[in-house]
Amino acid sequence: MNAEIVAIGSELLTAFKQDTNSLFLTAKLNELGVNVDFKTVVGDRRTDLVSAIRIALSRADIVVLMGGLGPTEDDLTREATADALGLELKRDPEISAWLYARFASRRIKMAENNLKQADVIAGAEVLKNPRGSAPGQFLQTEFQGKLKIVILLPGPPREIHPMFEEQCMERLRKILPERHIATRVLKIALIPESEADRRAAPIYTKWPDIETTILAHRGEIHLHLRAQAHTLAKAQEKVDALTSQLEDEFDDTVFSTRGETLEQIVGYYLQMRNANLSVAESCTGGMISQRITSVPGSSRYFVGGAVVYDNSLKSGLADVSPILIQQHGAVSREVATALAEGIRKRCNTSLGIGVTGIAGPGGGTEEKPVGLVFHAVADGNSTDVIERRFPGDRDLIRQWATAQALDMVRRKLR
Amino acid sequence: MNAEIVAIGSELLTAFKQDTNSLFLTAKLNELGVNVDFKTVVGDRRTDLVSAIRIALSRADIVVLMGGLGPTEDDLTREATADALGLELKRDPEISAWLYARFASRRIKMAENNLKQADVIAGAEVLKNPRGSAPGQFLQTEFQGKLKIVILLPGPPREIHPMFEEQCMERLRKILPERHIATRVLKIALIPESEADRRAAPIYTKWPDIETTILAHRGEIHLHLRAQAHTLAKAQEKVDALTSQLEDEFDDTVFSTRGETLEQIVGYYLQMRNANLSVAESCTGGMISQRITSVPGSSRYFVGGAVVYDNSLKSGLADVSPILIQQHGAVSREVATALAEGIRKRCNTSLGIGVTGIAGPGGGTEEKPVGLVFHAVADGNSTDVIERRFPGDRDLIRQWATAQALDMVRRKLR
Repeated sequence: MNAEIVAIGSELLTAFKQDTNSLFLTAKLNELGVNVDFKTVVGDRRTDLVSAIRIALSRADIVVLMGGLGPTEDDLTREATADALGLELKRDPEISAWLYARFASRRIKMAENNLKQADVIAGAEVLKNPRGSAPGQFLQTEFQGKLKIVILLPGPPREIHPMFEEQCMERLRKILPERHIATRVLKIALIPESEADRRAAPIYTKWPDIETTILAHRGEIHLHLRAQAHTLAKAQEKVDALTSQLEDEFDDTVFSTRGETLEQIVGYYLQMRNANLSVAESCTGGMISQRITSVPGSSRYFVGGAVVYDNSLKSGLADVSPILIQQHGAVSREVATALAEGIRKRCNTSLGIGVTGIAGPGGGTEEKPVGLVFHAVADGNSTDVIERRFPGDRDLIRQWATAQALDMVRRKLR
Repeated sequence: MNAEIVAIGSELLTAFKQDTNSLFLTAKLNELGVNVDFKTVVGDRRTDLVSAIRIALSRADIVVLMGGLGPTEDDLTREATADALGLELKRDPEISAWLYARFASRRIKMAENNLKQADVIAGAEVLKNPRGSAPGQFLQTEFQGKLKIVILLPGPPREIHPMFEEQCMERLRKILPERHIATRVLKIALIPESEADRRAAPIYTKWPDIETTILAHRGEIHLHLRAQAHTLAKAQEKVDALTSQLEDEFDDTVFSTRGETLEQIVGYYLQMRNANLSVAESCTGGMISQRITSVPGSSRYFVGGAVVYDNSLKSGLADVSPILIQQHGAVSREVATALAEGIRKRCNTSLGIGVTGIAGPGGGTEEKPVGLVFHAVADGNSTDVIERRFPGDRDLIRQWATAQALDMVRRKLR
C-alpha cells in the first residue's frame, strides 16, 4: 500500500509558504504501514488540479488531498476530484443546515457561496470539522479498475490534525491489512553529522529491515528507527535491539531514546536531584535561558540569570572581576569560569552556567577567531570548562554553544 | 513560461525531512518572470523517477530537478532524466579528471562508482560544483515537439544556492523573454492576521496585476507585493504606489517596507538616537534578548540584562521591591514598570524593557489567565506600559510578547 499527498493552493507555490502538513500526515500513514511515495503541490487552476489528481490516482493506492475546501471561487478540490473520478457532486442537506446554523450562531448572514462546502462526492463519507467551516470527505472508489482510497482534508494545520487523527485513522485501520510498527528516536549531543553517520552506518546497515533516518539539528543528531513485524512486541524488540547497539557505540553522548529534548532532559535531571540552575550568557545572548524556559514548568528548577553582553554587566550582574576581564579578555576560560561561579552565587542556585565566545561575523582575531566559545558549569565544588571552536554562521555557532552548555549540565547531573 | 520543481530523494518522503530548496528556487524563478506551477517530491526508485520527470516535462517549460546526483546506487537522476528524454549519457573526460584530482588532493583513493558523476546527458552544459563532488547540468531540448529547459542540481542547500545564482540565472536570462519585476515586503507589527486581511484586501484587490501574499509570523504580518512591467521603473512604480496606500491604511503599525526584521529596525533606531538598551524579562525567558542579539553588531546598542524568572531575581537583579511584588503580584502593571525602570538604572542604559506574564500552560487564574502579559519600556522620563491578553500556546504567547516589547521600543524612538 502506498500513498500520495497532494497539497492544493497557489500560495504553496510562492517563495514564502510551504506545505508542512505532509510531515504530520506521513508520520500517521507510516504508523499504519503505508509509505508515502509521492508528494505534489499544485495551484488553484482547475485543469492543473484535475490532472494532478488523476496522476496521483494512477500511481498511489491512497490519495490524500489537502486544501481547497473553502467557500471561495479558488476552492476547487471537491469539483476537481469528482471530475477526475467521473463521479457526481451532491449537495448534502445536513451540512447545509449545519452551515446555516454555524453562521446564525454568530449572528452573521451566510453568503450563498458558503453552500458549496456542502457538496459531497457520490459515495463519500463526510468528515466533520468542528474547528472550521469546511468538512472533509473520505471515499473508497475504483479508478482504472483498482480500488482507491481518496481523502479530502482542509488546509489549516489546526483543522487537519484532529480531523485525520480522530476520523481517518480508525477508518484506514479497518480497511488496511493489520501492521505493527515500532519506532524509536535516539538523540545524540554535539557530534558532527559526518562522524555520527560514519559510526552509526556499520551498525544500522546490518538491520536492513529497520528503516533508519539520520538528521542533524542545532548541535544534535537524531537517529529515527522504524521497524515492522507480525506483532507489536516483535517490532519493538527489533528497534530496541538496534537502539541498544547504537547506545553502546555512542555511549554517554546519547541523551534521549524516547523523544525528549535536551532541555527537557536537563529539567528531569535537575528535578530528580532537587537542584536548580542559573545562567550568565554572553555570545548566546539569551538563547540558553530561552531554550530552558521553553519547557512548561521550568520555573521549578530554573531561576533565571543574566545576559551579560556588555563587559560592564559581566561584573555588574555576575560579579566577574574587571581585572580578570582585562587580564584574560572577555572571551576566555577564566571569564567563563567566573561567570558560572558568579551567577551561581548571586542567584543562590545549585548550578551555574557561564558562556562567553565570538558568534561573529565580526569581532574575530587570529588568536580568538569567530566560533571560539568557552562554556563553564559550576556546582560549588568544581567548575567544568569546555573550549570549542564551532564552524558555521552566527546562528549556528549560538545554537551549538547552547547545546554544549545544556549538555554539560546533563553530564554534571548524570 | 512556467516551471516545475522536482525534489528527488527518499529521505524527503519521510516524516522528518522536507524540501526547502524549492522556496529559494521559486524566488529566483519569479525574479525571471517564471511562475512555479507544480512541485513534486519523488523517491529514489527509477521507474517512479522516470515517470515523474516525464509528467513534469509534459506540463512545464522549465523542469528543475534537485538531488540524486551523488555517486551511490540510489543516485539516479542523471539516468532517469536521460531515459525520460530518450537521450544518451556520455562520460565526460574533463569531469572524470577533475574527480580524480579532487580525491588525490585529499590523498584518498577514489572508488570507481564516483565516476558516474561524470556522466552527462547528450547536449547538456556542465555546471561546476566547487562545493561538492556532483556537477549539475543545464539542457535545452525538445520533448513532445516543444522546447524545454531541464536543469539538474545537487541536493545540499550550500551547493544548490551558489550553483543556481552563478551558473543558471545568467543562462536563463539569455533564453527567457526580458521581464522586469519589482517586489516589496511591508511588515506590520501586532495585528491579527484576520484583521490585517480585512483591512488590506479592499486595497490590494484593486491592483489585480500586483501579486499580493499575506503571511503571519510570530506577531507580525508580512505583505509581499510583486509586479511586472515593461521596464523596471514602471514595475517599481506600481509596487511603490500600492505600498504607499497600504502604509496609509496601516499607519504606524508598519515597521518596515524593505525587508528588515523588527529587531533590525529597533537596532537602527537605537543607533540613530545614540541610545542603548537593557532588558529584564520574565515570561519570555530570554527570547527578547536572544532576538535582539541575533543581529550582528548588536553589541553596539544592547548591553544585556536579566532573565528574572524567579521572583527573587526580580529583586536581586532588577531591583524590584519585594513588597511591590507581594502587593500586586509578579504579573502586574506595577512589576513590569519596576522591572523596566530597575534594569535601566542597574545597567545604566537609555532604555529599559520589563516584561512579566503568564505563558502557560499552567499558572493561570481567573483573574490572571494564561496569555496575560505586561510590557513596559522606560526611558528615564516616562515609562510606557501595555497590557495584552494573547491567544495561543506557550510558544506563541512568548513570541507575541517579544514582538510587543520590541515594537514599544520602536515606537518610543520613532
